[in-house]
Amino acid sequence: LLIGSPLATAEAQGEAIGKVIGLAVFASDALSSTAYATQEMLVVLAAAGAAVFGYALPLTLAIVALLAILTLSYEQTIHAYPGGGGAYIVSRDNLSDLAAGTAGAALLTDYVLTVAVSVSSGVAQVTSAFPSLLAIRVPLAVTLVLVMMIINLRGVREAGNFFAIPTYFFLITMFATVGVGLARYLTGSLGTVTQPPPLETAQSIEAISLFLILRAFSSGTTALTGVEAISNGVPVFKEPRARNAGITLMCMSVILALLLVGITFLSVHIGAVPSEQETVISQLARTVWSARPLYLAVIAGTTVILIMAANTSYAGFPRLSALLAVDGFLPEQLALRGTRLVYSRGIVTLGLIASVLIIVFRASVTALIPLYAIGVFLSFTLSQAGMARRWAKSARLQPGQEIKGEHSTLRHDPRWRTKMLINSLGAVCTSAVTVVFAVTKFTAGAWIIIILIPLLVAFFFRIHRYYQAEKREMSLERIRPAPPIRHNRVILTIGRIHPAALAALRYAQALSDDVVAVHVATDPEEPERLRNQWHTWADGVPLDIIDSPYRLVLEPLVAHIKELAEQQRPDEAITVVVPQLVTGDLFDNMLQSHAADFLRLALFFTPGVVVTDVPCQFDPSDGSGKERSENRK
Amino acid sequence: LLIGSPLATAEAQGEAIGKVIGLAVFASDALSSTAYATQEMLVVLAAAGAAVFGYALPLTLAIVALLAILTLSYEQTIHAYPGGGGAYIVSRDNLSDLAAGTAGAALLTDYVLTVAVSVSSGVAQVTSAFPSLLAIRVPLAVTLVLVMMIINLRGVREAGNFFAIPTYFFLITMFATVGVGLARYLTGSLGTVTQPPPLETAQSIEAISLFLILRAFSSGTTALTGVEAISNGVPVFKEPRARNAGITLMCMSVILALLLVGITFLSVHIGAVPSEQETVISQLARTVWSARPLYLAVIAGTTVILIMAANTSYAGFPRLSALLAVDGFLPEQLALRGTRLVYSRGIVTLGLIASVLIIVFRASVTALIPLYAIGVFLSFTLSQAGMARRWAKSARLQPGQEIKGEHSTLRHDPRWRTKMLINSLGAVCTSAVTVVFAVTKFTAGAWIIIILIPLLVAFFFRIHRYYQAEKREMSLERIRPAPPIRHNRVILTIGRIHPAALAALRYAQALSDDVVAVHVATDPEEPERLRNQWHTWADGVPLDIIDSPYRLVLEPLVAHIKELAEQQRPDEAITVVVPQLVTGDLFDNMLQSHAADFLRLALFFTPGVVVTDVPCQFDPSDGSGKERSENRK
Repeated sequence: LLIGSPLATAEAQGEAIGKVIGLAVFASDALSSTAYATQEMLVVLAAAGAAVFGYALPLTLAIVALLAILTLSYEQTIHAYPGGGGAYIVSRDNLSDLAAGTAGAALLTDYVLTVAVSVSSGVAQVTSAFPSLLAIRVPLAVTLVLVMMIINLRGVREAGNFFAIPTYFFLITMFATVGVGLARYLTGSLGTVTQPPPLETAQSIEAISLFLILRAFSSGTTALTGVEAISNGVPVFKEPRARNAGITLMCMSVILALLLVGITFLSVHIGAVPSEQETVISQLARTVWSARPLYLAVIAGTTVILIMAANTSYAGFPRLSALLAVDGFLPEQLALRGTRLVYSRGIVTLGLIASVLIIVFRASVTALIPLYAIGVFLSFTLSQAGMARRWAKSARLQPGQEIKGEHSTLRHDPRWRTKMLINSLGAVCTSAVTVVFAVTKFTAGAWIIIILIPLLVAFFFRIHRYYQAEKREMSLERIRPAPPIRHNRVILTIGRIHPAALAALRYAQALSDDVVAVHVATDPEEPERLRNQWHTWADGVPLDIIDSPYRLVLEPLVAHIKELAEQQRPDEAITVVVPQLVTGDLFDNMLQSHAADFLRLALFFTPGVVVTDVPCQFDPSDGSGKERSENRK
Repeated sequence: LLIGSPLATAEAQGEAIGKVIGLAVFASDALSSTAYATQEMLVVLAAAGAAVFGYALPLTLAIVALLAILTLSYEQTIHAYPGGGGAYIVSRDNLSDLAAGTAGAALLTDYVLTVAVSVSSGVAQVTSAFPSLLAIRVPLAVTLVLVMMIINLRGVREAGNFFAIPTYFFLITMFATVGVGLARYLTGSLGTVTQPPPLETAQSIEAISLFLILRAFSSGTTALTGVEAISNGVPVFKEPRARNAGITLMCMSVILALLLVGITFLSVHIGAVPSEQETVISQLARTVWSARPLYLAVIAGTTVILIMAANTSYAGFPRLSALLAVDGFLPEQLALRGTRLVYSRGIVTLGLIASVLIIVFRASVTALIPLYAIGVFLSFTLSQAGMARRWAKSARLQPGQEIKGEHSTLRHDPRWRTKMLINSLGAVCTSAVTVVFAVTKFTAGAWIIIILIPLLVAFFFRIHRYYQAEKREMSLERIRPAPPIRHNRVILTIGRIHPAALAALRYAQALSDDVVAVHVATDPEEPERLRNQWHTWADGVPLDIIDSPYRLVLEPLVAHIKELAEQQRPDEAITVVVPQLVTGDLFDNMLQSHAADFLRLALFFTPGVVVTDVPCQFDPSDGSGKERSENRK
């Protein structure tokens, strides 16, 4: 099940990558959003009729302006955090635990939605080319999510070259589409979409309003999701890492801006209609290319990059969970980065929640979008605000002075004023978008995220509180000398006399000279028979019988042990030894009585009592099993 | 949570009851089915149009004849099994394990369906009187099921007097309705239903066919569900138990027959229309009684007896589970009759499955019926066949000779020929009904049960096979002498040095002189720091460091211990001691690393290794917790 060899600590870094491969690895999330951003703006504008689709172009330009600010902001983050500076790390380093928890919650929801939205959009591209698949889009999308889950469970080496092919294939097909489209537009030969899908609008057409425009803008901002990916991945770049990563970010943003403006411009011009039947990208591609193979190439490129974008979440989600766990915001077990099991859990969690979202929202990108960008922009805001605060701190340092942090080194920066201004501007703009998004999309689904994120943060802090307490209680200062245990009283629980009981007796006798067997009798005739057998097999070890008129078995035993525990002196301990049958079969093991587990739970809070189960292995499928457990004897 | 005092073994019998109370306790299941049997026949006949509703009367007479045969059959069972003879016990005693398993599976599904059908029908009565509740019938029914579940979890003393009131209230109101109805029919003043609900039929009306008639008959046989209840409950009757129970059964059957014929006759006569909007009982009641309070009394009586019928399953389901567990067909834990926990699980299982059924079938009695009677009639068949076989065996005994069984004593019976004939007739008739039901209702839902019962039987036998193997392997003959353990090698697993680790060290030192601490290092800088601390706190006990370049923690430890286990001599044992933090809070406990549980699972099949976790209790809510765990020192 858990295939793939583990990576050694030294190897974990992997091979450093250059700018060309770096773009391929980190850009899929950002670039793939061009596949739905234009369409989602048009969907909103459709409420005021197709006549106002022209508004999409100025809105796209506003989004490009926002992208420019974000790019400058993140370029600074990359240089400040050459070890990788995601929103969570930047918030925790420069703001507060609360901000970090909020960023963590926002990012985790974001990873899930990236999977749901990207896969839904990918499936929408496929069903545009093959409308007969429209009826099965939900199972198709869920299957894709689960296949990716299984592939990631088996372990993917994130080989950069593997990513390069589809990313550059997408870029070539999409730039060719936009380029040829523009050329045909300029020569007047482009025309409009033939047989566009019907426009699904409300009965009465709304008048265009500021609210509607802001809502369309909000939908368009989903184009910016994924811009932060490179800032997380700085350490994998070749030296000079920060410089290379920064240049890659710039390139990515320029490409994103060009595609976004080109696609929106052409889509409006050809009269593309936003629809669940056929995506705008599909309408654009078939208008630009008359040859079906070329059209299919565009669809294939778009689908593949969307799937790749979804795939990035499968790496990001467990990685962020591990980071949160290291800081005590999630169970510490998740911080054991090495064990594949931990990543497996994250991958399965992500795959299942994304599947549920796809089923609930019928694989509709339009239905999922209101949940999506709010987490992204919240994390943008926290990250930029954290950076702004960082420059303010840096101003207070003397030149040459350094503060070494866990993830970065803070130095005086003579240009801190400019840098702070850029990050502050980024924070203000992204926070404005967050608010606009929350308000305009509230009833459409954003309310879910607005409720969910604080709940997640509260959950993180509940966990954090426990680990703080554990750290406090389990510190070296809390250690007090205790007298050594001079007397270990061993209580052996006996049901019937059989090989497992005698194996437990043998072990019990190795622990201490003071062994007493205890049997709970629910049947008045039982004790006499048992006592006779016991004398035959365990001569010398006393047998206590506890009468249980109420036919309870475990409860009287627990009461008996608790009574003994209360009487014990500081240099005594009680060990409860329980025979436990074991077979190799999981189903069989469920059938065995797990008395030890029950006793352990019941006695966990009784100081000085230890419950031990002595396994006796046997093989139920044949008579030779007993021999295996004899090996030990 | 688990309220209600446990019953002592001696008390379990309870007080013996007479015939009047006995009828009230055991008749609710059978009598309540008159609330839906007539209607379900009419629903099927409706496919051929309202003109053929008249067929319902002869069909009812056929069902009454079947009832007579069943009653005679069960009267014999009661006398043969004065200790209680359900279909499971009778099949196991007289047929085979396979027959017993089949009866068990049929009865378990039957208990679940009794809850779903009775509650759905009860809700249908209420919504007939208050049509505004129709929209919430599903949540209403689920709430009822869950409320019953909670009441039963808290423990109900099955007080006979408590049952008498609603049963006799139902009988009075229903007999009054039928009586007055007949009187008004004879005087010609009855008339027909005013404003009956619309008849929901298919577009084209079917011709009446034998298949349709058999389908209607099958639906009507649901009236006979519950007839077997008294034969299960013989032991609670006053002496002479068998005689009293037998007379009660006769009374119940006569009442059932009278009500069934009366209700069907009047319903057809007044032109009642089977409908999900208004039950036939409601239409009959409001036609007979012009005063609404009297009408509401009938509705209330019917609803309450239906709820009581559902409630009988809450006692029967866990009781049968315990019986199956005693015989090794279900996990032995379920056989610990005394622990309330076991009954609680059965009650919760029953409540949840019934709720799911109600939700899936939209609380529609008509939709649930095809699943219902097949299990009932299958168990009738097995029970009667078992009795027939029993008489054949009894014929081979000499007068005065006895074979004492677990549940009954087999004696020679001079009238064995007649008795065998009666039970054989019962078996033949009920098996014919089973087949007719399975065929005519197959596509409507019976297929679910036809698939489910064999699966359940296979599941029972899979469990049975394990317990047989356990019995064989864990017999006294399998015990072979083993040398005593002379050397217990203790391995203490250490993560960080903290109070819990030192408590575990202290316990480990009490077990053996040979204690070695082991630490898995995932970080190259860790071992040096740990070694220094260890020397301060645990001078003398050696510390082994296992390097883990792959950052795995538990896997290298398991490999290390397995290696040691392979080298050990027959008189050695290995004990792995693991520190375990414990708090009183369930949520906190999920946050702790449960390394011991993991190690135990991983080492369960390694002979000679015992894993012990040493709990160290602390209270995360304040700083004083440490003192509590100090008590032991």
